[in-house]
Amino acid sequence: MGRVVVIGLGAMGLGAAQSLHRAGLDVVGVDVTEAARARFAESGAVAMESPREAARGADAVVVLVVNAAQTREVLFGDRGAATALGKGSVVISCATMSPQDARALASECRDRGLHYLDAPVSGGSVRAAEGSLTVMASGTPEAFDAAADVLAAMAATTYHLGDEAGIGSSFKIVNQLLAGVHIAAACEAITFAAKLGLDLAKVYEVITKSAGNSWMFENRIPHVLADDYTPKSAVNIFTKDLGIVAAIGQREQFPLPIASLALQLFTATAASGMGKDDDSSVARFMASAGGVTLPKKDR
Amino acid sequence: MGRVVVIGLGAMGLGAAQSLHRAGLDVVGVDVTEAARARFAESGAVAMESPREAARGADAVVVLVVNAAQTREVLFGDRGAATALGKGSVVISCATMSPQDARALASECRDRGLHYLDAPVSGGSVRAAEGSLTVMASGTPEAFDAAADVLAAMAATTYHLGDEAGIGSSFKIVNQLLAGVHIAAACEAITFAAKLGLDLAKVYEVITKSAGNSWMFENRIPHVLADDYTPKSAVNIFTKDLGIVAAIGQREQFPLPIASLALQLFTATAASGMGKDDDSSVARFMASAGGVTLPKKDR
Repeated sequence: MGRVVVIGLGAMGLGAAQSLHRAGLDVVGVDVTEAARARFAESGAVAMESPREAARGADAVVVLVVNAAQTREVLFGDRGAATALGKGSVVISCATMSPQDARALASECRDRGLHYLDAPVSGGSVRAAEGSLTVMASGTPEAFDAAADVLAAMAATTYHLGDEAGIGSSFKIVNQLLAGVHIAAACEAITFAAKLGLDLAKVYEVITKSAGNSWMFENRIPHVLADDYTPKSAVNIFTKDLGIVAAIGQREQFPLPIASLALQLFTATAASGMGKDDDSSVARFMASAGGVTLPKKDR
Repeated sequence: MGRVVVIGLGAMGLGAAQSLHRAGLDVVGVDVTEAARARFAESGAVAMESPREAARGADAVVVLVVNAAQTREVLFGDRGAATALGKGSVVISCATMSPQDARALASECRDRGLHYLDAPVSGGSVRAAEGSLTVMASGTPEAFDAAADVLAAMAATTYHLGDEAGIGSSFKIVNQLLAGVHIAAACEAITFAAKLGLDLAKVYEVITKSAGNSWMFENRIPHVLADDYTPKSAVNIFTKDLGIVAAIGQREQFPLPIASLALQLFTATAASGMGKDDDSSVARFMASAGGVTLPKKDR
């Protein structure tokens, strides 16, 4: 296929763009920040500032920005990519957003003769860099066809979840609900274990082999045990994603008690000054609220 | 070793007693209900009504009743086993209870010259019947020694978590906190997915391979998909266990927001008449509260 543009060179976007470059595709990376562009250019690839300029003559645009509003801006804003794309090219939209937003974006793309793949991703920056993301995708068969080479290079697994935009986003929303709740619950449990005076490394060993285990407990609690809150995924990602979950619950008039409470805990953690730290920082908020001490690294 | 008495022939106790019997140990099962005794006697083993009568001359007593109060009653009540046990025999206490209760029971056993193993179990009735439970145990080396043959026959894994009673119970409590929260979250998520109009079997397939997965989501959601709420583990087990969790939080003055909310959801599910149904019935409560329809089996 021809040129592929990756818009958004944050942790996920950078990794995905590098995977596409490594797979031999003609990739242009786009980001508003100079530092992000420089990082991508280090691998010998081309980085630009303007989505529109990068998109001229491209066959596919992968959008890996933070939310629906940014996705709309980089596609349809003043320097948006959409007007530069030829008919029949594909927009692969990867940000977590509400199904309603995904349907609206798909509709605008369709009006311009562009294919739209609702394609939120899961797996984190490490798997993005390996080209082994999971993509929860929905869209027309034509959108899937047009995106096939890109998906093959950036994903280990692509789920084909339906032929309309919004379905992929709905799956991602359900996943984020569970992921966020499980992080908050893991943090509540490990600080409670500290309050009970337990050996936390032993707690980790036992729980990860018991019915109380979750993917998130297993993945995040080592950060707490190591007192390392360097952001692999930040608290602010989950205030955002659980915020989307809660807003959908309100719009659809469906009660989400646990997800809403987890959102409050992420919000309190961010409000305590840890918004940009690793999302396992909810444990530090709980430790502070509960008057217990978590493991400290020698510094 | 000599005779082993298993007190409490519910789903877990029956399975454990059968495992011990199959391992060639001299087992007597004890239960207050005739039906439970008859079920155990079917396998050619001896079942009695009185803990004291059964315990005469026994080397070990495994207590698999519902809570600390029942454990106290079968050990120290009018027909309790403790006075019939010879010095140096061991009480293996498997009910979920607070560490405070475990320490008190251990102290009373010590006063009578009995070893006490704080040995809550995890794994459910199927693994109990296979002799492959997980035991989260703490106690003196002497208690572990005295319990070794019994543990070998009923457990696939025995964690040695410390040399004082209370530690094993604390680990179990942390596990139950997570297990209960994860069931409630799984039920909230799957009903939300139904509200979003998703293919729930596909949701199960995707989530169990994604970061939103938990042991409980994977284990319980099939009951919802099959519309089968025959109790493998009942709602009332978690109102009980999360009740213990919440009470410890209050006593220790430690906030447990998510576990407390999960307790409320199990309580509401029980209050809606589903206390004896499978704990995945929280999904039916959420579906009713949220006005959605879950899968219905042809009847």
